[in-house]
Amino acid sequence: MQELSARHLLGIKDITAEDIRLIFETADNFKDVLNRPIKKVPSLRDITIANVFFENSTRTRLSFELAEKRLSADVINFSSSGSSVKKGETLLDTVNNILAMKVDMIVMRHASPGAPHFLSRHIKANIVNAGDGTHEHPTQALLDSFSIREKLGDVAGKKVVIIGDIMHSRVALSNIFALQKLGAEVMVCGPSTLLPKHIQSLGVKVELDVRKALAWCDVANVLRIQLERQQMKYFPSLREYSLYYGIDKKLLDSLNKEITIMHPGPINRGVELSSDAADSHHSIILNQVENGVAIRMAVLYLLASKV
Amino acid sequence: MQELSARHLLGIKDITAEDIRLIFETADNFKDVLNRPIKKVPSLRDITIANVFFENSTRTRLSFELAEKRLSADVINFSSSGSSVKKGETLLDTVNNILAMKVDMIVMRHASPGAPHFLSRHIKANIVNAGDGTHEHPTQALLDSFSIREKLGDVAGKKVVIIGDIMHSRVALSNIFALQKLGAEVMVCGPSTLLPKHIQSLGVKVELDVRKALAWCDVANVLRIQLERQQMKYFPSLREYSLYYGIDKKLLDSLNKEITIMHPGPINRGVELSSDAADSHHSIILNQVENGVAIRMAVLYLLASKV
Amino acid sequence: MQELSARHLLGIKDITAEDIRLIFETADNFKDVLNRPIKKVPSLRDITIANVFFENSTRTRLSFELAEKRLSADVINFSSSGSSVKKGETLLDTVNNILAMKVDMIVMRHASPGAPHFLSRHIKANIVNAGDGTHEHPTQALLDSFSIREKLGDVAGKKVVIIGDIMHSRVALSNIFALQKLGAEVMVCGPSTLLPKHIQSLGVKVELDVRKALAWCDVANVLRIQLERQQMKYFPSLREYSLYYGIDKKLLDSLNKEITIMHPGPINRGVELSSDAADSHHSIILNQVENGVAIRMAVLYLLASKV
Repeated sequence: MQELSARHLLGIKDITAEDIRLIFETADNFKDVLNRPIKKVPSLRDITIANVFFENSTRTRLSFELAEKRLSADVINFSSSGSSVKKGETLLDTVNNILAMKVDMIVMRHASPGAPHFLSRHIKANIVNAGDGTHEHPTQALLDSFSIREKLGDVAGKKVVIIGDIMHSRVALSNIFALQKLGAEVMVCGPSTLLPKHIQSLGVKVELDVRKALAWCDVANVLRIQLERQQMKYFPSLREYSLYYGIDKKLLDSLNKEITIMHPGPINRGVELSSDAADSHHSIILNQVENGVAIRMAVLYLLASKV
Repeated sequence: MQELSARHLLGIKDITAEDIRLIFETADNFKDVLNRPIKKVPSLRDITIANVFFENSTRTRLSFELAEKRLSADVINFSSSGSSVKKGETLLDTVNNILAMKVDMIVMRHASPGAPHFLSRHIKANIVNAGDGTHEHPTQALLDSFSIREKLGDVAGKKVVIIGDIMHSRVALSNIFALQKLGAEVMVCGPSTLLPKHIQSLGVKVELDVRKALAWCDVANVLRIQLERQQMKYFPSLREYSLYYGIDKKLLDSLNKEITIMHPGPINRGVELSSDAADSHHSIILNQVENGVAIRMAVLYLLASKV
Repeated sequence: MQELSARHLLGIKDITAEDIRLIFETADNFKDVLNRPIKKVPSLRDITIANVFFENSTRTRLSFELAEKRLSADVINFSSSGSSVKKGETLLDTVNNILAMKVDMIVMRHASPGAPHFLSRHIKANIVNAGDGTHEHPTQALLDSFSIREKLGDVAGKKVVIIGDIMHSRVALSNIFALQKLGAEVMVCGPSTLLPKHIQSLGVKVELDVRKALAWCDVANVLRIQLERQQMKYFPSLREYSLYYGIDKKLLDSLNKEITIMHPGPINRGVELSSDAADSHHSIILNQVENGVAIRMAVLYLLASKV
């Protein structure tokens, strides 16, 4: 059997193109399973997985939890609200306590970039990073590229633009790594205040004009504008953002070509994406959600063979 | 096999007396199961049910969750606290995301009347309304009528009074529909400030005097006074409410006949019901709770055959 | 088969040394199970356990939940936040409602000393006390003594000192009872403001000087200083506490003998225990956590035979 090159999924930066292809082929099989009447497989029976979420995330946690249950794993959920974390315990003590209860794998979301990488140097269990601050969100990038491959046949050679708040987005960074490893051309597009200064050093094109970006691309991955950042000084207002970067059906129709629209959710309808664009035939947004479960099953399955 | 006339349970208003009888006969079987040492049946194996609660409700959620687990369904819980809902996502987007993860049925509580009806026009999964604002709470009405049938042999021909805050109660409205469809005579009783203006148009008797109501009825379904409504202008004070509408053992004994006392819980002991009344032989309050699991098993089971 | 002398585990005060030994021998077996690849046994199949936590406790709740799942029990979790408890329902009504749904056992944490004892006089289900205010925390004391027995071969004849805030600690009280029943010599050590006035009446030694206590003992069970008590008048400041009662590697090395360090967690590193002491070979802190699951499996298993 083929194996992943690493014992953890900390970030896309740390895995190979070969790893990604193995995950995709495994996810293909699990996607078949999810479309059968009997959606459960016994693959991870007798494996215990703890979902350790130090930040709220209903969507990602549900997707992981369903993936784990479809694999017949035993699942426990730990969230920081109401936990020892409030009592001042260190991250390592919290996780070591969970592991001492004979837990095999940790799926972790944490507000601090690098938290899962730190953990991986101190514990034996496999770790899946479910988002670490503004750093990486590897399973999101995997399901995004998997969805492009599903829609367009391949990722290699495709032109993908990521639109929005690139600076604060772990989705953007993980997507850049995944797309490049799979041979896509990557562009980022957004107001200059939301683009990191040295973003070109990652080998991506930069475009401030969303019409030009859309004219160039095969796929537009539209990020969520986080309403809570409105207070920030140099940020355009929501109204300005929507005016200059919002994508609607009319704009898509004006392109005279077919492009694919993606969004990691939750959508701010009428801000970064109008309803007629989000619900159009261009959109593969709900396919992304569906593929998320298959991708997470694949990642957990492949890592479990390295328990 | 007999089938329900609808794919959803949105409200009692939308189902037939025949539907209700089918649910009761199915619940009879499940009640037998719940009294066996082995309380689990494989009926909903490979069905995934999401409990989507936009309002808190430990009691109803636990009852549904137990019903689902006794049926061997896969269960995921979604509550709005800490979720994408806070991030401004629409109801339809939230539910479509959950469904994209291959969920078969949705049990939903929502603060807005009509929310599950709206959803039912846009999604394919079966929906069970677990309470929509002040509108309906159909499984509560079903378990209430099922408990009357269990205690008195039949609902038809019985005189049932619903006592309390009729205006703000989804339990009252669903009970009125269920009792009438099953052939009971229905009365509502409460201070005039808590009775809807056009309540007579529903074909119910109205009585302001609780002694007269009790003298008339076979069954009194005593609603919970919601302490949080105390601030409202025309509302009687708790003390006044308790004085004029509170039911105690002495009042029950003065009736010179046997009546049955019900309450949907949680009880405010000493307000709408004294402890000696709530715990007397008149009360079937804990039977209602027990029957709730059997009724919910029946509803889920019957809807699942229409997945 | 041997049996426990009681139908509940309310406190260590209420059980016999023979009960404790039976629990330990049963836990030995379950600990073997937990170290096998297949960590699940079918012992509590068709038993439903409700974890009813009126106080937050991630650590203890997770340990119970894992123990229950390893035993194949059906598990439901009830926590007071967002529940009927907020609506003014009584403890007995809340629990009776849960039991009416055909629940067999209740694991309960409550802020009021004696709450599980009160319940045990009114309900039929088996109750496991998971902590009642400042009173008892019996499974913690059992896992502590089990860990001493594992490390030192036996508890009888050993010298154990409990260090810290004895006055407000349910862990201390339950440990005193367990250690004495198993034949250990028990000392308590802490600032006089944190020692109950009549503590000697329990038959324990009292020592204010932590160096003398450590010089005397075989085992030091170091309690957590609860940071939230800082506001109290006579309490030493954290800095003072750490200075006079904090234990570090240097202090342990100065003893010229081997002692065992325990802590119920979560640790305030640098307050009651330095990192070099907590992580030293003296420490069996993570063994305690691991043993907690086996002990709770044993307690639940033995009580279930008395359902």
